[in-house]
Amino acid sequence: MANTISVIGLGAVPEVRVGDDYTQLVLEAASADDFSFQAGDILVVTQKIVSKAEGMLVDLREVQPGEFAKQFAATWDKDPRQVEVVLRESVRIVKMERGIIISETRHGFICANAGVDMSNVAGYDYACLLPKNSDASAECIRHGLREQLGLEIPVIISDSFGRAWRNGITNIAIGVAGMQPLLDYRGTTDAHGYLMHASIIAVADEIASAAELVMNKIDGVPLAVVRGYKYAPGVGSGQEIVMEASRDMFR
Amino acid sequence: MANTISVIGLGAVPEVRVGDDYTQLVLEAASADDFSFQAGDILVVTQKIVSKAEGMLVDLREVQPGEFAKQFAATWDKDPRQVEVVLRESVRIVKMERGIIISETRHGFICANAGVDMSNVAGYDYACLLPKNSDASAECIRHGLREQLGLEIPVIISDSFGRAWRNGITNIAIGVAGMQPLLDYRGTTDAHGYLMHASIIAVADEIASAAELVMNKIDGVPLAVVRGYKYAPGVGSGQEIVMEASRDMFR
Repeated sequence: MANTISVIGLGAVPEVRVGDDYTQLVLEAASADDFSFQAGDILVVTQKIVSKAEGMLVDLREVQPGEFAKQFAATWDKDPRQVEVVLRESVRIVKMERGIIISETRHGFICANAGVDMSNVAGYDYACLLPKNSDASAECIRHGLREQLGLEIPVIISDSFGRAWRNGITNIAIGVAGMQPLLDYRGTTDAHGYLMHASIIAVADEIASAAELVMNKIDGVPLAVVRGYKYAPGVGSGQEIVMEASRDMFR
Repeated sequence: MANTISVIGLGAVPEVRVGDDYTQLVLEAASADDFSFQAGDILVVTQKIVSKAEGMLVDLREVQPGEFAKQFAATWDKDPRQVEVVLRESVRIVKMERGIIISETRHGFICANAGVDMSNVAGYDYACLLPKNSDASAECIRHGLREQLGLEIPVIISDSFGRAWRNGITNIAIGVAGMQPLLDYRGTTDAHGYLMHASIIAVADEIASAAELVMNKIDGVPLAVVRGYKYAPGVGSGQEIVMEASRDMFR
């Protein structure tokens, strides 16, 4: 059994407040779970706590929906304030059908509702936006952990996106720091000496998916550590996984 | 650290031949790696060994490309025999641009090259097709393991597919037996009492992605076991993850 990795959920993160220091949140959660980071670990952090710490919450009581949002919301029985926030977070609508909005965010992500989740804080409804720059957030946590622990721990910010052609959402990497998010096997040969074509593997997305298995939406485990996976070190970024418009056949 | 899962690669699978018994392949690989299955384990099997055992190999020396395949291959510097096989495996072309064929297979999968991989057996080029019915293959392995071990082990047949909007391929579940591939959180409340909308998680795809992290294309590890994940038992099928045409906005 030479080849084993572990995925460890760290659940003991307190309710996150605007301005909270990510690194402290991570270290406190680890400490509360009697967990010690090791060299080789990869940390996966859900988008939600990053967005909350960065203050990316919009109080729906303060949103004035425009005419377009009102019309779409009325047709499809949606909250016009939510629709308005989604439209503001979109740079381009890809599809807008049957009450579903698939759009491109300013980060280049293509997803439902521009990645906006609904949240409830102190009894009021908030829209939780994506972090402004998930790669910068990932790098901030990576840097903080290096300062505090003296370890190089790659960090992935994850979120759950839908896909074309397949039911259900899966966790993917929207921010990456400290590792190469794509592994390029082109030009290498497989176990039988056969040249491998078109094999670029989005390992950061696969790591985010593995992390979701211990995060469990209901229990609200916002951190996971992947241990034992031999990642390729590098600066890395989640933007490398965003397909360039010129190559994308489904925009 | 209550919440930990392990992903264990089983690499010691011999070269697979047509007609090989999957269950025996799995048991031999486990035995060679000193691995014992436990209740709660999930087995992930790469499509390639299933296809090979089922004889889904097409000898390219015997393929006569048609005019359409010849033209497309000449324009984009492809092997016309490979293109011909891909077209035969497709029930509908979704996109055919810049040498790339995205098509729908008879199973309803939408992917590049109709899921056809190139393989090399005994010095000759073969096209390796998807299994005829990955759900039936998964069920066959599940049933075999139950007979041999007396354990209920869910089985996922995995393959690496590309995605719209994102670079790189990730491992997904093309066949499932013994577990629910989708977890439906709709109507449930999260840790903060907020009702969760639109949260159906494709856990079988996430498990397949986690498995890829130990499979490693180059080393050719064709089996992985996910241990410690509390799956929802059920008959299950990979077809449940294939989006119904009526709901799919990107066909």
